[in-house]
Amino acid sequence: MTSTTDDPYARLVDDLAYSYEGVFSRDDIARAVANAHQTLAVNATVTHYLPVLVAKQAKEQLKAQAQADGRIAKSVPELLFVCVHNAGRSQMAAALAEHLSAGHVHVRSAGSQPTTEINPIVVEALRERGIELTSAYPKPLTDSALKAADVIITMGCGDSCPYFPGKRYEDWDVADPAGQPIHVVREIRDDIQARVTTLLREVLH
Amino acid sequence: MTSTTDDPYARLVDDLAYSYEGVFSRDDIARAVANAHQTLAVNATVTHYLPVLVAKQAKEQLKAQAQADGRIAKSVPELLFVCVHNAGRSQMAAALAEHLSAGHVHVRSAGSQPTTEINPIVVEALRERGIELTSAYPKPLTDSALKAADVIITMGCGDSCPYFPGKRYEDWDVADPAGQPIHVVREIRDDIQARVTTLLREVLH
Repeated sequence: MTSTTDDPYARLVDDLAYSYEGVFSRDDIARAVANAHQTLAVNATVTHYLPVLVAKQAKEQLKAQAQADGRIAKSVPELLFVCVHNAGRSQMAAALAEHLSAGHVHVRSAGSQPTTEINPIVVEALRERGIELTSAYPKPLTDSALKAADVIITMGCGDSCPYFPGKRYEDWDVADPAGQPIHVVREIRDDIQARVTTLLREVLH
Repeated sequence: MTSTTDDPYARLVDDLAYSYEGVFSRDDIARAVANAHQTLAVNATVTHYLPVLVAKQAKEQLKAQAQADGRIAKSVPELLFVCVHNAGRSQMAAALAEHLSAGHVHVRSAGSQPTTEINPIVVEALRERGIELTSAYPKPLTDSALKAADVIITMGCGDSCPYFPGKRYEDWDVADPAGQPIHVVREIRDDIQARVTTLLREVLH
């Protein structure tokens, strides 16, 4: 609370320095916030919500990094869903796992070549099932996210997905919702849900 | 996954029956979903997002009930922020505690006489700090939420806040943002943040 400026990112650095006291230095945090802002500002179409997206991404990055380095303990299993664009399959899988897990897992998703926005038909197919995806966005796959994961699920990601030894891997053969109409996307959603349900049973029981 | 209908609430009951297997019966879950739908449909101005709000409220209600009855263990301390309308102070306090806690607490907020929508200036004052409040809405104070709480923080709630023995209580003398311009709401936000910061230190250290 030492900042005297109205710059939201200075306040965000203050806030996260408080949240991660004893885990990260202020410099680490300022760097995470600057990186998040730089990544997101390039593609931001609605700058009004930029502070919210920057805060979310900086928090996720810091949490993944702290887990990857063993600086904070994991309270629940960490699942990472990866596809090429992080615009469809991996977003659906992550949102469904979050929806169904009652907080017993923590999920992340990423793309080996992320696009700039989530497939709007995917957003719609999840919304009608009570799942909110409007503040999600495609994210690049980072070493921290891979290292922090206990289970890594790839979907059509091919050779571009790096392999880290010591993790549990699954590769799911799921159809790509890109360019598909809503009735096809609903079938893909339900296919993914069946796989997520099986995975959660295995991970949690 | 036994439902054959496209009714989103039938599927939501399926999903939550999976999430809460061994904790709640299917009837308990169907009742929670019906209650959430009934409460929210009355005031819904944007029915497009109704399934998302119903899912969120049903999940929160089931979690609070399971914690209140001792059916599930609490993984982190539960904080409950209460004001009269759940439109300003308690929403800000809950969102700031969530923002600052790095997941080390779980927060709820409620109002003794909830209004139908959150003060938009409050939403704006949090948004500029990187905090999303767009899917929040005023909620009534329930016995489950009170019983599930470890710490109950009241703000201007007067005689209408019931007292449950065995909980830690705090009463905060915070100005009401209702009808105030953004610069006043920012001051109230920062006053609440200072109090939340102190509270989190006490609860977590």
